[in-house]
Amino acid sequence: RLNCPVVLTGFTEKMAKIARDDKRRVAHSLKFGLALTLVSVFYYVTPLFNGWGNSTIWAVITVLFVMEFTVGATLSKGIYRVLATLAAGLLAVGAHLVARLCGEEGEPVVLAVLVFLVASAATFSRFIPEVKARHEYGVIIFILTFALVTVSSYRVEDLIEFAHERLTTVAVGVATCLLTTVFVFPIWAGEDLHELTAGNLDKLAEFLEGMESEYFGDHSSCENLEAKPFFKVYKGVLSSKVREDSLSTFAKWEPIHGKFRFRHPWNQYQKLGALCRQCASSMEALASCVITLKKSQYPEANPELSLKIGATCAAMSSHSAKALRGLSLTVRTMTKPSPINNDMSTATKAASDFRTEFSEDVALLQVMHVAIIASLLSDIVIQIKRITESTNN
Amino acid sequence: RLNCPVVLTGFTEKMAKIARDDKRRVAHSLKFGLALTLVSVFYYVTPLFNGWGNSTIWAVITVLFVMEFTVGATLSKGIYRVLATLAAGLLAVGAHLVARLCGEEGEPVVLAVLVFLVASAATFSRFIPEVKARHEYGVIIFILTFALVTVSSYRVEDLIEFAHERLTTVAVGVATCLLTTVFVFPIWAGEDLHELTAGNLDKLAEFLEGMESEYFGDHSSCENLEAKPFFKVYKGVLSSKVREDSLSTFAKWEPIHGKFRFRHPWNQYQKLGALCRQCASSMEALASCVITLKKSQYPEANPELSLKIGATCAAMSSHSAKALRGLSLTVRTMTKPSPINNDMSTATKAASDFRTEFSEDVALLQVMHVAIIASLLSDIVIQIKRITESTNN
Repeated sequence: RLNCPVVLTGFTEKMAKIARDDKRRVAHSLKFGLALTLVSVFYYVTPLFNGWGNSTIWAVITVLFVMEFTVGATLSKGIYRVLATLAAGLLAVGAHLVARLCGEEGEPVVLAVLVFLVASAATFSRFIPEVKARHEYGVIIFILTFALVTVSSYRVEDLIEFAHERLTTVAVGVATCLLTTVFVFPIWAGEDLHELTAGNLDKLAEFLEGMESEYFGDHSSCENLEAKPFFKVYKGVLSSKVREDSLSTFAKWEPIHGKFRFRHPWNQYQKLGALCRQCASSMEALASCVITLKKSQYPEANPELSLKIGATCAAMSSHSAKALRGLSLTVRTMTKPSPINNDMSTATKAASDFRTEFSEDVALLQVMHVAIIASLLSDIVIQIKRITESTNN
Repeated sequence: RLNCPVVLTGFTEKMAKIARDDKRRVAHSLKFGLALTLVSVFYYVTPLFNGWGNSTIWAVITVLFVMEFTVGATLSKGIYRVLATLAAGLLAVGAHLVARLCGEEGEPVVLAVLVFLVASAATFSRFIPEVKARHEYGVIIFILTFALVTVSSYRVEDLIEFAHERLTTVAVGVATCLLTTVFVFPIWAGEDLHELTAGNLDKLAEFLEGMESEYFGDHSSCENLEAKPFFKVYKGVLSSKVREDSLSTFAKWEPIHGKFRFRHPWNQYQKLGALCRQCASSMEALASCVITLKKSQYPEANPELSLKIGATCAAMSSHSAKALRGLSLTVRTMTKPSPINNDMSTATKAASDFRTEFSEDVALLQVMHVAIIASLLSDIVIQIKRITESTNN
């Protein structure tokens, strides 16, 4: 018996989950449909259609090329689309005039050679790192428009009119996308970036809180540490760079909205993100050390001192975690952080006390395996301090 | 005085460097120009043009959509292009027939509603993880074709003819791309993946060689370790996942070529890559421990034992590095690795000897700071052993 309803229910549940996880996904899908429908109205309405003819189809293609999830992404792609079309259109008209000079026989040959040269050069430019990182989309649009206008120029009677029509339809497509993204349920890259940064801080705090209760704390079991969710949470911070970079590029394009004023310091988010990743990297080293030491099970040389250092570690973890939670709240509410951060100074003091005490007493070397971890942890404290300083700026 | 020639020389040098770094970039650029020129010939040659009319322009667009750097990528995009166009074309013809039933007034309304529904649903499907990872390109082509054919259907007399023309021109565009990529200086994703894997093994070896000569060795200075190039080389391995995944997806599409037979075990490369990254992650923890210990400068408790463990570490590093170099050569030449790997067994023995000796003698705890590093290193040895085993399969 085929369980068709079961499969269908599973599928529906999966779709519902995707929609519930981020409701903006539904909004974006509907907006995409709306923009496409609006633009296709130009084709259905006869007076408009007579003016533009077959070029109307370019407005539809433009929507497919330009419409993106966030306002910033749509805006930047839209501007690239218009500029690249303009540049390629002008160059193509120039190519057409040059080809005309070569007579009826020579024209297609000259056009073919020009398409070959321009397309090859533009494709090669995509390998330049700066172009690849920022302008690749513009180059693709440039090649597309240049090839289409040049090739068409051989058959079209009035090329200037043709190029003008293309530019108008592209502009209509871009305008439709922009109106839809900005005025219907706008999704801002800036807000996503903001949320990502606060989330990263929370993740770092979660790791330290987990370490405090499960590893350094009094009632810690230390069992099955690798399977605990908190023990891997820094990995999400480590892999956040790509998303952060793209969001911050798009956030810079966005106009003033909500709590974000003009000249919002978007670059600061990237600096903070870099510091968070550095901190997460130290956490990875610490986690890896902890796992290694657990596996090897060395005999405990000095249980009393181990306990003492363990308590210091617990204090460093819990205070640092509290400081991070405070920072994350500061970022979320966009308030100025209080200049005196008690938790941060307690954590820093515990770290420096530990270092001083340790360098005085040679006997302490016997509990070096706890010490190494503590030392890694005190590095993390210093980095969190740097994060605090960077947020204060 | 403007130094225009200087700027120009700088630009030329930069372009020459990009071309020299990978000559296939020049080949790809020329191939792109060639494919575009070939396809535009269909437009210039009058007998062909009369048959297809304005649809010829779709062959040009197809080249821009499908042509990629490697054979595998072009092939997979080409097949997606044809399948998605076919599916969307059929659905659009169906939509057209439904809309016809609703009379002259109702037709544009029904078409608009259908475009809205299909575009929204398809856009939403791009949020499904499986679709995003593998079929996003197909979905974009599907929306494009469906919107264009449906919208055009309102004006075009013979829709079946129109859809047929579109499919033919798309097929011609795809065929041109495939012929150009396969027969003119083919660039294989499989070869790139192969080279990436061997390069990763070399990078891991380079780190261990550097550690042996600069940190564990007799004449090691340990100075400015962080600035040494070998000390960061594992980072390249850690970040290789995205490129490896995309290359391995495309490699599976590629036909038999050169030394790669049918059913080449492409999945093995990903398994090996995962092991290499795990090893690189342990190296990162080791590097981070080394830097931390250097900064803290604890008094040396037992110089004799430190020396002894240092020598064991040097032996583990150098033998593991030799084993990795051997593996990399094996991958490069695609020969079967010799079943008895002397270097690997020496390194494994040094690691296990160290563990045994260490657990017997409690006094050794005093040199724990060297021991921790050694222990991390022995983990790396175990992982390299796993890599060896995986290569042998």
